[in-house]
Amino acid sequence: MTMKVLVIGGIAGGPSFATRLRRINEDAEIIIFERGAAISVASCALPYYLGGLIRDRSTVIERTPEILKQKNNIDVRLYNEVTAIDPKQKLVHVINHQNNQSYTETYDKLVIATGASPAVPEIKGIDKADDAFVLRAITDADKIKRFLETKRPKRVTILGAGTIGIEVAESFVNNNMDVTIVEQSGQVAAPFDSEIAEIVAAELQAQGVHVLLHHTIKEITDNGKTLVFDNGTTHQTDMLFLGTGVQPNSQLAADAGIKLSEDGHIIVNQQLATSLPDIYAIGDVIETTSLITGQPIPSLLSSAANRQGHLLADVFNGAPLIYKGFIGAGVAKFFDLTVSYVGYTEQMLQQAGINDYRSVFITPFDHAYFFPNADRVNFKLLYQDKTGKILGGQAVGRNGIDKRISQLSVAITGNLTVTDLPSLEIPYSPPYSSTRDVLNIAGYVAINQLTNRTATIKLTDIPETDFKSAFFLDIREAGKPAAGSVTPTLNIPLSELRERINEVPTDKKVYITFRKGLGPYNASRILAGKGIKATMIEE
Amino acid sequence: MTMKVLVIGGIAGGPSFATRLRRINEDAEIIIFERGAAISVASCALPYYLGGLIRDRSTVIERTPEILKQKNNIDVRLYNEVTAIDPKQKLVHVINHQNNQSYTETYDKLVIATGASPAVPEIKGIDKADDAFVLRAITDADKIKRFLETKRPKRVTILGAGTIGIEVAESFVNNNMDVTIVEQSGQVAAPFDSEIAEIVAAELQAQGVHVLLHHTIKEITDNGKTLVFDNGTTHQTDMLFLGTGVQPNSQLAADAGIKLSEDGHIIVNQQLATSLPDIYAIGDVIETTSLITGQPIPSLLSSAANRQGHLLADVFNGAPLIYKGFIGAGVAKFFDLTVSYVGYTEQMLQQAGINDYRSVFITPFDHAYFFPNADRVNFKLLYQDKTGKILGGQAVGRNGIDKRISQLSVAITGNLTVTDLPSLEIPYSPPYSSTRDVLNIAGYVAINQLTNRTATIKLTDIPETDFKSAFFLDIREAGKPAAGSVTPTLNIPLSELRERINEVPTDKKVYITFRKGLGPYNASRILAGKGIKATMIEE
Repeated sequence: MTMKVLVIGGIAGGPSFATRLRRINEDAEIIIFERGAAISVASCALPYYLGGLIRDRSTVIERTPEILKQKNNIDVRLYNEVTAIDPKQKLVHVINHQNNQSYTETYDKLVIATGASPAVPEIKGIDKADDAFVLRAITDADKIKRFLETKRPKRVTILGAGTIGIEVAESFVNNNMDVTIVEQSGQVAAPFDSEIAEIVAAELQAQGVHVLLHHTIKEITDNGKTLVFDNGTTHQTDMLFLGTGVQPNSQLAADAGIKLSEDGHIIVNQQLATSLPDIYAIGDVIETTSLITGQPIPSLLSSAANRQGHLLADVFNGAPLIYKGFIGAGVAKFFDLTVSYVGYTEQMLQQAGINDYRSVFITPFDHAYFFPNADRVNFKLLYQDKTGKILGGQAVGRNGIDKRISQLSVAITGNLTVTDLPSLEIPYSPPYSSTRDVLNIAGYVAINQLTNRTATIKLTDIPETDFKSAFFLDIREAGKPAAGSVTPTLNIPLSELRERINEVPTDKKVYITFRKGLGPYNASRILAGKGIKATMIEE
Repeated sequence: MTMKVLVIGGIAGGPSFATRLRRINEDAEIIIFERGAAISVASCALPYYLGGLIRDRSTVIERTPEILKQKNNIDVRLYNEVTAIDPKQKLVHVINHQNNQSYTETYDKLVIATGASPAVPEIKGIDKADDAFVLRAITDADKIKRFLETKRPKRVTILGAGTIGIEVAESFVNNNMDVTIVEQSGQVAAPFDSEIAEIVAAELQAQGVHVLLHHTIKEITDNGKTLVFDNGTTHQTDMLFLGTGVQPNSQLAADAGIKLSEDGHIIVNQQLATSLPDIYAIGDVIETTSLITGQPIPSLLSSAANRQGHLLADVFNGAPLIYKGFIGAGVAKFFDLTVSYVGYTEQMLQQAGINDYRSVFITPFDHAYFFPNADRVNFKLLYQDKTGKILGGQAVGRNGIDKRISQLSVAITGNLTVTDLPSLEIPYSPPYSSTRDVLNIAGYVAINQLTNRTATIKLTDIPETDFKSAFFLDIREAGKPAAGSVTPTLNIPLSELRERINEVPTDKKVYITFRKGLGPYNASRILAGKGIKATMIEE
């Protein structure tokens, strides 16, 4: 008996599912309904198309309906929108927007892959803004391009300093525009942690992008040309871009009686089945499980959508597979920087109510310092206290960023802990890496923390009274710039510490003021050799 | 009681050991004897120093004796050669080459880190060659640079097409010389497999390097200016470079009665102890264990030397650690190419007598094909049949090569199998990767092989009779170039296969001729849907 499978949504998970199903099942009848103008759109590529790095529009569309028909015998219906699901009769209602004809189509199995759409923030007057844009579909990019070409706006204001906001900032800069990003919170690039965000903020400034942090828009007036902030100031612009997050396209599912999470994502089981029989869901519209914490999280990665589609096809074909969730990993190009993450950031851990973590922040070179163009990898590792389980990692820099985060992602999949990191074998040659590479060093530091070989304290955790009574040792060499925000009691260069160790008191609490690199650690070991337990300040 | 530790050799493992020991033990007396002119030399950087990519000689020396004294309180003695070990009296005999004074030094513990030296091949007349060079110590690089500057040779001939041979070929090309590599075997870049080696050979040709494969030198005459080959031909040169491998510097150990392996490496246990009490050994001079096969292998990686040094210091300090061996991982820059490996190559497996392996060779793009400058990652995966255990990987290309091999290395450390590879989460964005990245695809292909979903055969394994009787289906689309070395029986473009499937016979063996990409696999699935089991030819 031939199985009839309908797929709602043709951007990412839908085509992955359908082509996989065809490869393992030559007989199934497969129909994809896509309300938009194209399927298999590389949404992540749209900022580059907008900015001119990708010139050929057709390349952003990875597969056309014709190719899917010819190569995979899949019936793709563009501009065909499913308006309702009838789970009792097992059929869907469809409207063909090309001829305005409505029709129904029955199914044996239904796959909802409707994705997510940009969220429009609730700001007074935003509905009256003439020139407010989003970027999700290829037609969104077309609209912006047309607007840029016909109206030649000089100023653009981006609401939201998240990934899409920063990516389109680059696109607009490449179009020689004056770019302002408005952000409610106190940092760019959330949920990256502040160590990473500060470097991104500096890059935005260097590229001439204006960033207004802590700015809440009270009202938009003048048909979208004037922003009025909480604090009473105003800001003029020629166009608006909404980079304020996405929301799942789950209304269709909700109307059919499918169970949703509180924030509107479709809830699925480990076979990706919804709460109604023979209806499945994949991609950005669903909630999945974090493999790091076991908590539910929205499935907002195209790679996850593809994987879910692939697996669901195997499940339909009888394979005893389950989808356990994902770790979560991403990378983005922010002008000349690469930023990448895997797992949880410190912000995400705190939001999830997880507090038994420790962190390592290191800044080694991306390859041997003596080979040309070595640059810093700013790398933050988060791990569980005591067990050393890896909870996440973030990095930013100009070279080798995605490489290190992908290594950490594989390490998490392999259930490695921080104690395994020093022995990872990263192929070494001066143009590519260092004999002790980034993850090796992070592992050594974490182990030192876990074994209390080094005592560290965050600046903000130092008791107020200690600033009067304790001894703050600065170990910088003569001529090196000061670092850290604590005024030292005494400077003894590391190279002189052994000879001058008597100058360090044994009857006071001893702190070593912040410096990058191994210096404070070496100093703490020299002091430990003489029975002085010093604490290194982290900043 | 203060422990007195002597270290013989100061290039890689020795300083790693000594500095680590100092960090965890402030009191130990530590002396490093180095017979050469420098310690902590980044030997891997010497080809780049020679070629001019690294201009500052001092940067190749990572640490000086002065710094080790000042920062780590380690006594480093350059030009001091240990000439004999007296294990009974626990002392070493030393000659100071600066003043020709001999002396002895006692030890509590002795660490042999004497490394390896370039092997001089046994060729008649090589001892009479005036201008034959090797590259291992910084002084070797000095000698070559001086020769190039004073004698201005036009032609250089490199014996051996291994990694060092190809790296120095680039250095000499950068010095505008006419470069010839002479290699006995039939390929360059052994032990990389032929799929990788062919791409390296093409790059060498493109860069104007002459490569003479299958050339055995019978004799060197004319004070090193003429090579006479087996086949009677001759070759003229202005200088020779010996890139014919290395041999362990283990004579000192052998003379002391320390047990060596058949090929002359020091045998150590999992605490890195030699066969004599209180004498340890680390680095290129020892034999270690492959974590892939459990077989003994020489420890020829500076990263391994560093790790062994670090671990040995911890062992001396009482830590209950063991050294299990290594996977083995490397990377090299060959002109504009990067080549990298982890674990075993097919050649190495065959030499080790391991035959129950299977291989995957794929050539996906290093990042999304629609983003500028996408290039192929030529990637070979080797895994154990049935279990799917990963045995090794190799890759060559222009971008992202070291990234993929380092991911595979971490996967091996995590004991992942090929069935885990599809679910690896490689951070995706068009400039960096693909939604299904290299290791994901390799995993899918391996799983298809293991589950016999696809039947594949190597060209050379096709029975001779089949070339007369079987049906060879070519699925290339009209206008696409032919591929593969078998003359097809019939061409049916993949896009027409469903409609024309009756043209494929059901009473003959069916092969699908070689094409890159997913086409043959898709064709085999279409045929399978109609009950025809076709076999894809691998080339």
